[in-house]
Order: sequence, then structure tokens, then C-alpha cells
Amino acid sequence: MRLAIYGYGNLGRGVEAAATAASDVSLVGIFTRRDVRKVRAASGAEVFAAEEVFAFCDRVDVLAVCGGSATDLPTMTPQLASRFQVVDSFDTHATIPAHFAAVDAAAREGGHTALIAAGWDPGLLSLARLYFAAALPCGKSYAFWGRGASEGHSDAVRHIPGVKDARAYTLPREEVRQAVAAEQTVLLPAGAFHRRVCYVVAEAGADTCRIEREIRALPHYFAGNDTEVHFISEAEMAREHAALPHGGHVYRNGTTGGRGEVKNALSLSLRTDSNPSLTGSLLLSFARAVVRLHERGEYGCKTVFDLPPAALLPMAPAALREAFL
Amino acid sequence: MRLAIYGYGNLGRGVEAAATAASDVSLVGIFTRRDVRKVRAASGAEVFAAEEVFAFCDRVDVLAVCGGSATDLPTMTPQLASRFQVVDSFDTHATIPAHFAAVDAAAREGGHTALIAAGWDPGLLSLARLYFAAALPCGKSYAFWGRGASEGHSDAVRHIPGVKDARAYTLPREEVRQAVAAEQTVLLPAGAFHRRVCYVVAEAGADTCRIEREIRALPHYFAGNDTEVHFISEAEMAREHAALPHGGHVYRNGTTGGRGEVKNALSLSLRTDSNPSLTGSLLLSFARAVVRLHERGEYGCKTVFDLPPAALLPMAPAALREAFL
Repeated sequence: MRLAIYGYGNLGRGVEAAATAASDVSLVGIFTRRDVRKVRAASGAEVFAAEEVFAFCDRVDVLAVCGGSATDLPTMTPQLASRFQVVDSFDTHATIPAHFAAVDAAAREGGHTALIAAGWDPGLLSLARLYFAAALPCGKSYAFWGRGASEGHSDAVRHIPGVKDARAYTLPREEVRQAVAAEQTVLLPAGAFHRRVCYVVAEAGADTCRIEREIRALPHYFAGNDTEVHFISEAEMAREHAALPHGGHVYRNGTTGGRGEVKNALSLSLRTDSNPSLTGSLLLSFARAVVRLHERGEYGCKTVFDLPPAALLPMAPAALREAFL
Repeated sequence: MRLAIYGYGNLGRGVEAAATAASDVSLVGIFTRRDVRKVRAASGAEVFAAEEVFAFCDRVDVLAVCGGSATDLPTMTPQLASRFQVVDSFDTHATIPAHFAAVDAAAREGGHTALIAAGWDPGLLSLARLYFAAALPCGKSYAFWGRGASEGHSDAVRHIPGVKDARAYTLPREEVRQAVAAEQTVLLPAGAFHRRVCYVVAEAGADTCRIEREIRALPHYFAGNDTEVHFISEAEMAREHAALPHGGHVYRNGTTGGRGEVKNALSLSLRTDSNPSLTGSLLLSFARAVVRLHERGEYGCKTVFDLPPAALLPMAPAALREAFL
């Protein structure tokens, strides 16, 4: 599989590391919007200017589009999907329908295959939600995130005028999570399952009251949540908030038919020292599936729900059954 | 979806209950090898003799084949797959290749689609193993089962001459499971992760020493495991071992690329009050996917690895994305 990476931030580096470790992948190049003379790839891969990407149509099987969901991906992914197989990690749940429609139209026009919202959430946790609902049609699902730094939330804060840098953490309320794990029925408003804590470096002279107000009001990210905002120095940010750990839990408790009450409980848990590193690893496996769907003539925009699990790994079907069934 | 059930034991009843609760499923009938005059279906569905099933080819979209893996399914599933879409819960891991080949040949000849090894393990836990390996190519996986009654193991014991009834339990060694959950690397032989406990009702006059010896020697089931065997009365079996609870855990701990050591941990846990009730619920969702694969012209034998997750639920793609992505 000939892979290229478009966008070379934390996530791009995560995909790069995963590609370097995979024996069936050759990394064709990395495309950046920064000055190519100042960017050196950790793997030694060639670095090109973003606008050169369309010259690579015949040399790339799939492009990992690594940008922020707030402003980058809504324009980048459709544009690239018109000429390439692409995979992105778009994670603004509420605007997935619009993003899906834009990417689908672009991909179909060119006979390409695109996968959006691929990572761990949306992605691996979405798959757990779907499979768990299929296993237990009658039941109640719960999701918890963290403790961890959310790239999507941090990025959204960074786009607020006057913000120089930001790190947003999501933390489950542990007493609520324990109740769910003990198969109790928990009825609480959506905002009561988590706390959010933001650490912000403001530009010199910026109005921190306005920044704090804008953070709390950000739709899809902080509005309706219990949110703490702390303004800190650049030095403290570098010292205390360089790592990007994260985690998540999906629970579904439900009953199946038969005599009396048959209770069942399913859960998936995830913990990572580095959100972009794990997301990058997942994007690579999902990219493999995108190439296979394209080879089969399945064009347009897909989600992880459309991928046969077998397509994620390079092994032959019999070997997969032997190893994992 | 027009569903029929072939085999009316615990699992058949589990599928029946799931089918009754699903608004998109009509239960055409239940086929039994017992005397039809003595079998009444809990749902009120019509009961037919097993040998009548081939008269129903045009009235059934998919057949849930509900039998034991030791002796029933190896002959039943290929026979039925030559005329129907079928799904079974074959769970003898070591002989899956032979079963797959037999079912594949039968299904392809008639232009049918078959799914084997569908349930929670193999099934849901297999999917976790595959997705976790795709997320963390560099890592180590662990599986634990129980505490719970294993239908496959119980059935294998019941086929030993002189055994009237049997219930086999699998229990994780909790100290080993805790070490894995704490992301420690555990290096132990396969048999050291579990204990097995069998309760057996022997026929009057049967040689219990021989039975115990045969149980301990059963390949794929007890050979190589720490196994306790207890002979009990029929009354005690009915009183203490009527429920069929079970559970399972899949863990994968691994590293992803990047600077330094990036550690990650994934796990899936499952607990059920009734193994056949949960398996029946899963068989129904997997049966739905089999019908869709057949409609797309994908014939032959499949496993859960070949099913796009979206095919498991009756919802339209946009509704699925809205609900679960």
C-alpha cells in the first residue's frame, strides 16, 4: 500500500510512525502547509508542499488527511477525496452529516473511496456502540471519556482569538462510571457524566474574561458541560501538558428474552499515553480497508460501519480466522 | 426477514426470544428432531419435524442452525447451507478450518450464504481480538472466560458414554486477570489462565473413573487444563446448575510508534446471566447480515470478520451514523 500523509502535526506523526512499522506500507511522502525547508520527517520520508499533492495522484493509493475538525477537514477532505482515496479522523459528532455529504459527493464524482471519522472515537468506540446494540437491542448505553487531553477540544479552543495555546482535558465522574460498571441504571443529563478542564496560554494583552466566556459557549465542545478554565504561562504549558494521554469507555447493559429477567453487560475500555499516536495507528489500519473497498469498486464516503473487519489487516482470510476467530 | 430455527434446545429458545422482540423479523417456524407433537414453542410459532425443512426453501430467508459443535453442526450446517442461508454458532476453535471448508463448498454450490462461528465467542470476542490487533499491531493479547457455564464444554462431556447430564464451568484465575488489566506483561502457559470445574450426573452403574479420565483427556476442551470433576445427583443438577451464566474478557496491551514508549491498553468485557439467551440475540443480528450479504451476491461461507458492521442492524445508514458514530 502506497500511503501519503497530508498535514504534519501530532496526528501526521502518529500515522508516520505506524506506517514505518507496517511491512505492507510504503510511505510515499508527507505534505505540509508549512515551509518545506523547515520540516524534516522523523522517518526520513520526503516532505512536499501541500499544493503539490495533486501531482501525486498516480503514485498514492491512499492519503491520510491529518487536520483539525473545526476548520481544516471540512474543506480539505472533500477537496482531496475528488482525486485520492482518503481517510480522516473528523470528530465533530454533530456535523458528521454535512461532512459525510460533502466528501461523498466529491469521492463519487471521481470514482474514489473515502473514510471519515476514523480513529478511536469516532472509530473504535463507535464500533463498540453498534455491535453492543446489535447484541443487546433492549438496553441502555453509556460513554465516558478520559482522563485525557482531547485534541478536538484543544484545537477548538486554540481557534478562539487571543488564545496562543490550549490543552483541554475530559475526566469521567468516577462515581457515575462505577455505578454503570455495576450495571445500575443511571439517569442523569448528558453533562453530568464528565468534567472538563482547560489550560490556556493567552496572547499578551488578550481579554481573558472574553476568552473564558467563548470557551464555555462553544457549541458541540463545552456548552452544557461543567467546565473549568485556567490561564497559565507558556513555560507551564510546556512543562506540565506536553503529553496527550486519553481514554474512553463504552458500556451497554441490557436484557435478552427468555423466562424471567436475563441481564447482560458489555463494555469496551481504552487507555493511551498518546491520543495522536493511537489515532495514527488506527488511521493506518482503516486506510488499508479503504484501499480494499476501492479495489472492489465501492466508491463514495464510508464510515467504519461499512468496513468488513477483515479488510483492516494485511493477513489472508484463513490466517485471520486462525489468529482471531 | 423470514427466519426459521433448526434445533430447539436452549440456543433455539434464545434465538426465538430475540426474533419475537425484533420488529423486522417474522419467525416462519421451528424445526425439531424430537416428536413434534410433544414440542410447543414459547412464542406460539409453528413446530415442524426436522426432515420437513427442505420444503421451506422458498419461505425462509435465513435459518438459524442451533446444535452442538461436537457432533450436530459438522453435518447439519453443510447440509442446510446447500439449500438455505444459514448461521451457526460453531465454537470448536481447532476444527473451524474443516467446518469452514465443508460449509463453503455446500453454500457456493447452491449460491447461498452461510455464517459460521457467530455468537459471543467465537463472535463478539473474535471481533475485539481483530480490531484490537489492527489498533495495536505491536502488542500482546489475552483472553479470559467465565465465571460461567460453557455450553460447548458441557455438551462435549454429555457425549461421553455413561454421562446422563453435565455442566462445565470455566473460571478465570483472578490474580492473573488483574495483572493483565494493570498492563503487566504476563507470560504463562495457556492452561494457567483458567480453572475448569465439571459437575456430572452419571448413568446408573457407569464407571465414573473412566468418565473422569475421558473428560480430562478431551482434546480442545479439557486436555492441558486444570480440571476438577464432581459427580452429583440429578436433583442437585436441577437445583444448583439450571442457570447458564457466562462471561469473557479480551485484553490487548501494546505500544505505538513515536518518541519514547507510548503504551496503550484495550479491553472488552462481557457478562451474561444466560449464555444461550445472549448467543441467540447475537445469532439474530448476524442472521440479518447474512441475508444482506446474500442480496449483494456474496456467496459461500463467511465469518463475523466478513460482515460490515452496518449490516447487523435494520436501521438505514444515516440513522446508524447518527445513533452510533
